[in-house]
Amino acid sequence: MREFVDEIANQFFARIECDGSSFDEKNLVLELRSVLPAYSEVIINPKVEKRIVIMVTKEYHCLGDALIRNYFNTLNANVCCVIGNYDTLRELTKKYEVPFYHVSHENKTKLVFEEELKTIINEYEPDYIVLAKFMRILSPEFVSHYEGKLINIHHSFLPAFIGASPYRKAFERGVKLIGATAHYVTNDLDEGPIIVQQTIPVNHTFTVSDMVISGKEIEKSVLNKAMQLVFQDRVFRSGNKTIIFE
Amino acid sequence: MREFVDEIANQFFARIECDGSSFDEKNLVLELRSVLPAYSEVIINPKVEKRIVIMVTKEYHCLGDALIRNYFNTLNANVCCVIGNYDTLRELTKKYEVPFYHVSHENKTKLVFEEELKTIINEYEPDYIVLAKFMRILSPEFVSHYEGKLINIHHSFLPAFIGASPYRKAFERGVKLIGATAHYVTNDLDEGPIIVQQTIPVNHTFTVSDMVISGKEIEKSVLNKAMQLVFQDRVFRSGNKTIIFE
Amino acid sequence: MREFVDEIANQFFARIECDGSSFDEKNLVLELRSVLPAYSEVIINPKVEKRIVIMVTKEYHCLGDALIRNYFNTLNANVCCVIGNYDTLRELTKKYEVPFYHVSHENKTKLVFEEELKTIINEYEPDYIVLAKFMRILSPEFVSHYEGKLINIHHSFLPAFIGASPYRKAFERGVKLIGATAHYVTNDLDEGPIIVQQTIPVNHTFTVSDMVISGKEIEKSVLNKAMQLVFQDRVFRSGNKTIIFE
Amino acid sequence: MREFVDEIANQFFARIECDGSSFDEKNLVLELRSVLPAYSEVIINPKVEKRIVIMVTKEYHCLGDALIRNYFNTLNANVCCVIGNYDTLRELTKKYEVPFYHVSHENKTKLVFEEELKTIINEYEPDYIVLAKFMRILSPEFVSHYEGKLINIHHSFLPAFIGASPYRKAFERGVKLIGATAHYVTNDLDEGPIIVQQTIPVNHTFTVSDMVISGKEIEKSVLNKAMQLVFQDRVFRSGNKTIIFE
Repeated sequence: MREFVDEIANQFFARIECDGSSFDEKNLVLELRSVLPAYSEVIINPKVEKRIVIMVTKEYHCLGDALIRNYFNTLNANVCCVIGNYDTLRELTKKYEVPFYHVSHENKTKLVFEEELKTIINEYEPDYIVLAKFMRILSPEFVSHYEGKLINIHHSFLPAFIGASPYRKAFERGVKLIGATAHYVTNDLDEGPIIVQQTIPVNHTFTVSDMVISGKEIEKSVLNKAMQLVFQDRVFRSGNKTIIFE
Repeated sequence: MREFVDEIANQFFARIECDGSSFDEKNLVLELRSVLPAYSEVIINPKVEKRIVIMVTKEYHCLGDALIRNYFNTLNANVCCVIGNYDTLRELTKKYEVPFYHVSHENKTKLVFEEELKTIINEYEPDYIVLAKFMRILSPEFVSHYEGKLINIHHSFLPAFIGASPYRKAFERGVKLIGATAHYVTNDLDEGPIIVQQTIPVNHTFTVSDMVISGKEIEKSVLNKAMQLVFQDRVFRSGNKTIIFE
Repeated sequence: MREFVDEIANQFFARIECDGSSFDEKNLVLELRSVLPAYSEVIINPKVEKRIVIMVTKEYHCLGDALIRNYFNTLNANVCCVIGNYDTLRELTKKYEVPFYHVSHENKTKLVFEEELKTIINEYEPDYIVLAKFMRILSPEFVSHYEGKLINIHHSFLPAFIGASPYRKAFERGVKLIGATAHYVTNDLDEGPIIVQQTIPVNHTFTVSDMVISGKEIEKSVLNKAMQLVFQDRVFRSGNKTIIFE
Repeated sequence: MREFVDEIANQFFARIECDGSSFDEKNLVLELRSVLPAYSEVIINPKVEKRIVIMVTKEYHCLGDALIRNYFNTLNANVCCVIGNYDTLRELTKKYEVPFYHVSHENKTKLVFEEELKTIINEYEPDYIVLAKFMRILSPEFVSHYEGKLINIHHSFLPAFIGASPYRKAFERGVKLIGATAHYVTNDLDEGPIIVQQTIPVNHTFTVSDMVISGKEIEKSVLNKAMQLVFQDRVFRSGNKTIIFE
């Protein structure tokens, strides 16, 4: 059992993990409701395996890691399909017998592009949509539509280097560490609730391209960690922050 | 021996550590000069123990650590004096028989304040001036005057949370790590060449004040590491970056 | 609130932190006793500031850090006195107006040596005795006498390099990281319940002496972290392990 | 350029990376030979892409990561084939069109088993043989035969928990961190020269199985890092240690 009182939001969070067979779910809900305030949210017995859609652009490292885990059933989720705005990662995805959809963003409005994405996504009714290095900015409408379901990996230790080309900016600033951030997507670009962050050291010998290579490792690790936490129902949102019962 | 070619600045850096007694310093300089381009800078046999002045405000953790190391001769430097814009750390400093000067910034112009600082500093002819949680912004004139000699510890993993109250900002952003940055001071606030950076994990249970407490540990560690590197002549500046031959 | 079920020891642990003024301690104990099994241990409202005795040999880094924190009231403990089996750290200790006792282990039996230690320790009735680089092995009698009160810092990432000269052994083995371990002392040398462990990277350029210098930093950090946890009543022992409600 | 003087082995190591087209390899060797002692070893212009054979048992995580990198040409090596003493990882390997050989160790002597391995390995003339969670102990004859070419990933921060079941041992000891070690294989079990080591924190809530899961992440990361370093010719052996010019 883990509890947390968010004194600023004036909210109470608790997560209880039970074990055993003689467990009457309905009575438990009734009993909890009888002691908790009317406005409380009670989530009982969530499904063990989430359904997810992964969206990508051209980089393989996060997708590859997720596909292998999915194949060996260690992702705590079922990858329903992969959508790419380029066709680059089709072959990798097909190796694991996961459907791949190429939805180009070119020669169409963002509205049309996102309608095409939504048609595919909705067909699979996913619990979460994971942006595994999906390099297009999504519209407020799209983000609102999937409120709370969108998880992104950003290639910097936010709030440093918000926006495009964070490794180039990191190189130019001469930082001695680089990092990655997994966060829920909101309509403030790169400003959503942070789930996981990590950094690794770099030094003066690193070119931008060396930073990109090192960064990929930490992006992969951070996104995987965030997926594990979210899919095990350990992450709660409180305003623009996350409570994580690890 | 360590070398580095900065291809962007088009500069070559080398650091050679020699051992032994039959070592003719003058001949070595002559020989090096004869093969190196005329514009090269050659630094030979720097003095082992630097002279430093430490400037503080009210927080004790960085100063305390430096004073103990100074007392046991493990700082690679000699702390000539401590200057505080408050009198708070006088007692701590006096325990180690190091002169302490209280130079208040109150009821005077920045110009006057800094002239008072300079009078004291110049008396000691320090190699470096270490801002160990000195919480006043120095004027461009002051910074230029001590160009390349000013080392600061900033309480965030720059460029995140530039300016005041970084821990409050970090708390409000809901980051999952906090950090500290030691850097040379330039006239762009918190934008000088970075020497050392580290981060440590935090979580949702951390209040601003918990972050401050955890942050102090890493500030202390980062500033100490930076001082070790600088005082052992391992840090070279190239534009707004540092080359560190560790 | 934090809870943990140790399924191997078949034990349940809980720690509850309350806030507020209208808090009747006696009733709370009675109510808890009425619902808990008879064999349960209930610790209520422990005193906020522990009393500690620090034992040292010649190395200053852990002691210096603790004395400064003690002086600025950030140790969550009150350092009653320091005992050294050498006189080396007397001057440092005296700076902070803390009593220092030199109890040499030379020219006497371990029994006599430890009786002298006990006489001094008992006078102060400490809650904990912190071995801050105390380099003598204590007898089973001594350890039993202060069962659960002795905290030690060991200069390796246990169980690697048990016993003497861990840095030399680490150097000879060519490890790429070194570490430190804070643990409760039991009668199995370096085998007591571990409280905190950390490692830091080293490389082929490190001599034994460089490892010692780097190691001191992590020893200081690990011992301090362990003291914070223990003095805030966050550490529970379960067999030869610790449950830590951080 | 990187240099290192191993004062104990009384040896000098240097690694120079050159760039440019007008580069006469033969003259360079001649010139170097003319100034270096006769017993020096000079390695010039090693081939960029190594040939490797990967040996596995049942665990997929290290192999999967290497196969994906191999597929996207970011391994700095070419995976010639995979040999498993179980058939478990055949399907994964075949997805990437890499030959997979199942060589069971059952119902035969170690001598016969290893002759079968050698027959396959030798066919591919690999530069390195990577034991990516290969859980059989190889004979001194086998190890000698591939002297300096065998890289292993061990699932503990050696020298802690040498031998079998390191995670169970770590759990029983109650350590607060677990780790992984990549090393060259020698005939002293788990005692070969260490290339890369990392640790990650664990706590009292980790079961053995949780440690195994967390450990896999770090095993994957450590083995990958070691392969990058070795395949880029950055690792030199000096006795039972490694010099790494990173």
